[in-house]
Amino acid sequence: MSRQYNFCAGPAALPTAVLERAREEMLDWRGTGMSVMEMSHRSETYVGIAQQAEQDLRDLMGISDDYAVLFLQGGASSQFSAIPLNLLRGHESADYINTGNWSKKAIAEARRFADVNVAASSEANGFIDVPDPDTWQTRSDAAYLHVTPNETIGGLAYDRLPDSGDVPLVADMSSTILSRPLDVSRFGMIYAGAQKNIGPSGLVVVIVRRDLLGHASPATPTMMDYKVQADSGSMYNTPATYSWYLAGLVFQWLKEQGGLEAMETINRRKADKLYGFIDQSDFYANPIVPAFRSWMNVPFTLADDRLDSEFLQGAEARGLLNLKGHRSVGGMRASIYNAMPESGVDALIDYMASFEKERG
Amino acid sequence: MSRQYNFCAGPAALPTAVLERAREEMLDWRGTGMSVMEMSHRSETYVGIAQQAEQDLRDLMGISDDYAVLFLQGGASSQFSAIPLNLLRGHESADYINTGNWSKKAIAEARRFADVNVAASSEANGFIDVPDPDTWQTRSDAAYLHVTPNETIGGLAYDRLPDSGDVPLVADMSSTILSRPLDVSRFGMIYAGAQKNIGPSGLVVVIVRRDLLGHASPATPTMMDYKVQADSGSMYNTPATYSWYLAGLVFQWLKEQGGLEAMETINRRKADKLYGFIDQSDFYANPIVPAFRSWMNVPFTLADDRLDSEFLQGAEARGLLNLKGHRSVGGMRASIYNAMPESGVDALIDYMASFEKERG
Repeated sequence: MSRQYNFCAGPAALPTAVLERAREEMLDWRGTGMSVMEMSHRSETYVGIAQQAEQDLRDLMGISDDYAVLFLQGGASSQFSAIPLNLLRGHESADYINTGNWSKKAIAEARRFADVNVAASSEANGFIDVPDPDTWQTRSDAAYLHVTPNETIGGLAYDRLPDSGDVPLVADMSSTILSRPLDVSRFGMIYAGAQKNIGPSGLVVVIVRRDLLGHASPATPTMMDYKVQADSGSMYNTPATYSWYLAGLVFQWLKEQGGLEAMETINRRKADKLYGFIDQSDFYANPIVPAFRSWMNVPFTLADDRLDSEFLQGAEARGLLNLKGHRSVGGMRASIYNAMPESGVDALIDYMASFEKERG
Repeated sequence: MSRQYNFCAGPAALPTAVLERAREEMLDWRGTGMSVMEMSHRSETYVGIAQQAEQDLRDLMGISDDYAVLFLQGGASSQFSAIPLNLLRGHESADYINTGNWSKKAIAEARRFADVNVAASSEANGFIDVPDPDTWQTRSDAAYLHVTPNETIGGLAYDRLPDSGDVPLVADMSSTILSRPLDVSRFGMIYAGAQKNIGPSGLVVVIVRRDLLGHASPATPTMMDYKVQADSGSMYNTPATYSWYLAGLVFQWLKEQGGLEAMETINRRKADKLYGFIDQSDFYANPIVPAFRSWMNVPFTLADDRLDSEFLQGAEARGLLNLKGHRSVGGMRASIYNAMPESGVDALIDYMASFEKERG
């Protein structure tokens, strides 16, 4: 079989060009006689690869030197603990906004280490929108305000960045990072599990304002202390070297595509096409209020859920893979991250149209 | 350049056959149309890959169902925190044996969470041997006894397993796991960073007796709770899927080599050859008491350390890479893990002999 269109929410498709490059370099990276995964993380060669990746990410996102960029292990779920452990800074409480499954996980873990104030939630309406920031019950003495700008499971996204004033804004951007330009200076910290728009799983990128470092609680495992990791260039121990290298290949690929402005144009077009098709149909539906629809994760249902498995089988036969929705939501979900070419979205819409015609 | 002999202590060389297989499967794993790193960790295909890897490790090491086998993130250094957080089980103190740099790191981190009793140390003699177990000042009420059976930096190894009685024995086997057969039933827990004898960095394997699970301290980040990870098949969040797959390829390769009995024969021969050559020379020296010499990490010094850089340059020109000793020890270190073929050791000895002849 040749390469298929993989709509998985994560681990997700990577650009074919990146995988081809990785394949080419697998046994011998540029005449070194070894694979990147066989290199000492302290070697000049590997440190060069790692630093280039960091610089490319800084270039792409416009990250200033006021921020440390960390390449850590343990995924976003480890950050759910690390955030209160590092960022309470003598405060007792932190504000969280609840917009779906991943917000809830962040909140549940933070409650183990901090007094969590859920300042707003759209749970009552089934998470079909983001609560209006004017209604948020934030606390002025909160250590930070945590948001989840893109809910991977619900397919919900913030329409704009909230203004948290002097309280550092902390964001789980796992499924939206690098999908369009972002004003990083608005954040105290951004974190993202790699396995959607960055690279393979097992890597999590943390972008944290340096003035927030150095206040970790005594209960913090050293590996989770941002200051320790920042001071050691994310090499307090052996980092996930191969995943970091692959992330670097993705960053180079993004630069070749024209950077995040170019990705924004493509991603907007992909999302507009797919939502546009869903909205004109009586057979397919997406529940999210249009202003809050994710560009990256597009859940949709069929008018008759008894057709779900037939739909999925037909999709698979056409090389449209992993469209099954999350078990907590049901229906379908098309994740259309950076690596999903527009032709994949076109092929999906073609299939959806023909399925509706035949079975709708 | 073609493949070289890479003596790096970790991340270390992988079997060429494993890298060739990974290269072949990079863009399309067995007709699925996607790379393993693009697969959902919850998909039937990936779960099959992951479970096969676990089963192969169980087969190789003879691990019974009394033990959970976890594939986690964060390296051995994260386990330095996770061990006291999980295994104190209401006890206040734990015993540690100090035999070198990695023991010391484990001890320093454990002190942050437990009353650590260093029951024995060979620091006074420069870590050239393992203290005689008869002299260990262990405590009967210790939660566990922690040992480091192979010190990667010093090149020191236990000559036999200590008897810890009813106290669970916990071992950092990062640089010795899979190098020869082991009686797992003697241990409460074994852990190993992958980047030496298992696979790429970013993965750590934990083998823990199930009766020790379920007692994590309330301060334990959920990602570090062994019970949570065991109950979820190491998929509480997205694991390091690609590293896990590569570990599985290494396990299959080990089976093809004849398993750990066969590796023991080869590894013993490799180590005997290299130490034998060093011992018959007046130019090269290894400081470790012979009974405690590591089969995996062989540090050695030249009679005149002003020749060190010339030695390293000449080695590199012959394709013998990464022989420089750890900065804390100086001199040279040849790490000869499973993936280092006997021909690499032969080539190293040839070079050492000719260098001694010319410059000794």
